[in-house]
Amino acid sequence: MSKSSKGILVGSISGFPELLPKEQVAFNTCLDFIKKQFESFGFTPMDTPAVEKASTLLSKGNDSEIYGLCRLTGEEGSKKELGLRFDLTIPLARYVAEHYGQLIFPFKRYHIAPVWRGERAQAGRYRQFYQCDIDIIGETMLSLAYDAELLGIIHKIFSSIGLPNYRIKINNRKILMGLMQEFGVHESQLEAAIRQIDKKEKIDALMMEKGLEELGIEKKVVVQILSFLEKKGTNQQMLDYLEGFAKNDLLEAGLKELKEVIHLARAFHVVDSILEVDPTLARGLNYYTGTIYETKWMDCLEIGTICAGGRYQNLAETFTRKVLPGVGISIGVSRLIPKMIERGLIKSESETNAKVLVTVQDRQFLPYYIALAEEIRSHGIGAEVYLQDKPLPNQIKYADRKGFGVVVIANEEEIQTKTLNYKILKEQRQEKGSLKSLIDYLKGN
Amino acid sequence: MSKSSKGILVGSISGFPELLPKEQVAFNTCLDFIKKQFESFGFTPMDTPAVEKASTLLSKGNDSEIYGLCRLTGEEGSKKELGLRFDLTIPLARYVAEHYGQLIFPFKRYHIAPVWRGERAQAGRYRQFYQCDIDIIGETMLSLAYDAELLGIIHKIFSSIGLPNYRIKINNRKILMGLMQEFGVHESQLEAAIRQIDKKEKIDALMMEKGLEELGIEKKVVVQILSFLEKKGTNQQMLDYLEGFAKNDLLEAGLKELKEVIHLARAFHVVDSILEVDPTLARGLNYYTGTIYETKWMDCLEIGTICAGGRYQNLAETFTRKVLPGVGISIGVSRLIPKMIERGLIKSESETNAKVLVTVQDRQFLPYYIALAEEIRSHGIGAEVYLQDKPLPNQIKYADRKGFGVVVIANEEEIQTKTLNYKILKEQRQEKGSLKSLIDYLKGN
Repeated sequence: MSKSSKGILVGSISGFPELLPKEQVAFNTCLDFIKKQFESFGFTPMDTPAVEKASTLLSKGNDSEIYGLCRLTGEEGSKKELGLRFDLTIPLARYVAEHYGQLIFPFKRYHIAPVWRGERAQAGRYRQFYQCDIDIIGETMLSLAYDAELLGIIHKIFSSIGLPNYRIKINNRKILMGLMQEFGVHESQLEAAIRQIDKKEKIDALMMEKGLEELGIEKKVVVQILSFLEKKGTNQQMLDYLEGFAKNDLLEAGLKELKEVIHLARAFHVVDSILEVDPTLARGLNYYTGTIYETKWMDCLEIGTICAGGRYQNLAETFTRKVLPGVGISIGVSRLIPKMIERGLIKSESETNAKVLVTVQDRQFLPYYIALAEEIRSHGIGAEVYLQDKPLPNQIKYADRKGFGVVVIANEEEIQTKTLNYKILKEQRQEKGSLKSLIDYLKGN
Repeated sequence: MSKSSKGILVGSISGFPELLPKEQVAFNTCLDFIKKQFESFGFTPMDTPAVEKASTLLSKGNDSEIYGLCRLTGEEGSKKELGLRFDLTIPLARYVAEHYGQLIFPFKRYHIAPVWRGERAQAGRYRQFYQCDIDIIGETMLSLAYDAELLGIIHKIFSSIGLPNYRIKINNRKILMGLMQEFGVHESQLEAAIRQIDKKEKIDALMMEKGLEELGIEKKVVVQILSFLEKKGTNQQMLDYLEGFAKNDLLEAGLKELKEVIHLARAFHVVDSILEVDPTLARGLNYYTGTIYETKWMDCLEIGTICAGGRYQNLAETFTRKVLPGVGISIGVSRLIPKMIERGLIKSESETNAKVLVTVQDRQFLPYYIALAEEIRSHGIGAEVYLQDKPLPNQIKYADRKGFGVVVIANEEEIQTKTLNYKILKEQRQEKGSLKSLIDYLKGN
């Protein structure tokens, strides 16, 4: 992946992008910000090993994309017992089942970490990428209000990292199931029909029709589904449309939940205009049972869904007999943040979080410059001393390229008179003053 | 690994420890702290993929411990082209060589991340563990002052995370080489002799003698080496002892460097009492060429070296023709931090960084409680709403177990009079007041 063809992502192994320093600083700042938001809602950090037992990873049926571990050199032989996680949900399920007795419920955890998928190398497919997950797990039951809390967090994160024009689609799986019942889809066709509907954005109406018919769904039912899939309107219009089916128990239950979630989301300061009620939203058939979410950046649809998730009835049924309902979302940052940096929505001007470069003009006073930087750091302000033996212009060029805000210059005279020269690079302005005046300036800027 | 036998480390796959929430919070707080220290010295973050090409990983000869990647299921067949990094130095070398033209030198980077080693499962061997590395890479030359800066950072990190009684051993590889020359070790025996000396702490004097003799080193030379290995004294005594050999060029050069590094380290506020000049310190023969460091926690020698590193002449000779001298250290936190938590040196009392739990006494006012928490968060203070439908005592118990400092309680009366009850859990004290009085209390505590 070269810089020119893939934007700011570099790195020579296909599917394993990496960043240059300035972009890495910006990326990390964003991740820190997401972390702080998660923590401000009471989520606890989780950091399971990257490696899980093969039996754990295979417990949900997925297999083709999982990396197994083996010896790099020498003969194979032993069977592969360990592999790399491909998501953060399986490790969560395993962790909760394993440490159940030592956890506090409702268990709110966040997990920001890479996952790996052994995909064939192809344009745009990452084989390692970061996920930022939060889930809330209840014992036996979990309040619907948590579904609204997640909407609040999604909104807070995207609005505050400065992402413009994003939309959170929301639906309830019960609504979609109820609608299919109403249209006349047979119980036996239901799963396949919803899987087909899930392809909506990738295929055209004709292929959708053909696909539905191939499932053995009657022509007149197919017509109804197709007309439903074309349905557009404001949130209120969509809700009104759904109210029309309210004699269906499943749909009614789903609609009640959906309305409650939207109602409570307002208390979490979620703005109606970023919410989009979409009864056609399907997402991962076997897992979700209630609320489902899907967030897109409308100005950059090509990076796909940037956040998705939903409500599930039982987190860890393959690992424990406890019934653990939950709701969770996963934010995909490995595409989003680089794209935001590329478009100038996230700044990447500095390679360092330190503000000051202390230059060395006279090497016999090296201990003085070093101690000066220590003094600046003791005020909570990052400071680097330029320790290479280079002329001052080189040192200033280093500061400028690396993104320091301020360069400190002191010669024998300044050292003896306890003053400093400091150059504010952005403003091309130089000041002379005491250390205190420098600290005051730095604290104010 | 069960909790009882392995302290606070849990997790069912041997060699892959994980932490419970309270300990994870404490562990992460420590890592954040280390990160901030690195950043305050101007280091830039690096985050390469966990996966490197096999040829990259094998470039330094090491191989037996490297995990390769393969498909978890299905037939093998294709040769293993990718593997997991086993340290953070090889990725650094590869990164610097690959992106050379886009980096700013001296290149100061930190990297805090897990590494993997395919060790046989045995007591105390981790197969995944975190390393916190910093390195400074120069072009063609790198000032010795950076060697002193690293001493400053090691000292700052350990003293400020509250580690008592640690010692940084320091030596210079040239001193050890010069001494061996002086004692009469032949050029051809030198490498093996130093490897033997490196075993010093693991074997007794008799085995050391035997090992040295087996290398073909003359009896009288062995006697000199053994007597040297027994040498003890203050830093000044050790330096005086070494001055006695000053006619040896290599030793003289090393001694001059060592004294300069110690001299400058004082400007970085390194206290003499934590530094231990140890001319017998060897560490990784082929790599280091100047200063070498090794830090131990004297109250817990069983966890081994907690930080080590040194100066090298050329970082990336297998990847580029550029000459890139550097100096670096690696802090091993996966043993140290859990041990410090176990001994009560790092507190692990809370599962959350949020300070306040807003309880829900009357569910009809759910939006009120949610908005109240939003309001608290808008002041930069983390707040969780307890959204499960449980009686108040359960909610307070949840707050107490999870480690919240303050519980907010409001009934219809308080809501109408715009007041709050807040319970300060540690002090078992309840206050009644406005939201502002709560915020003021929280900001002050």
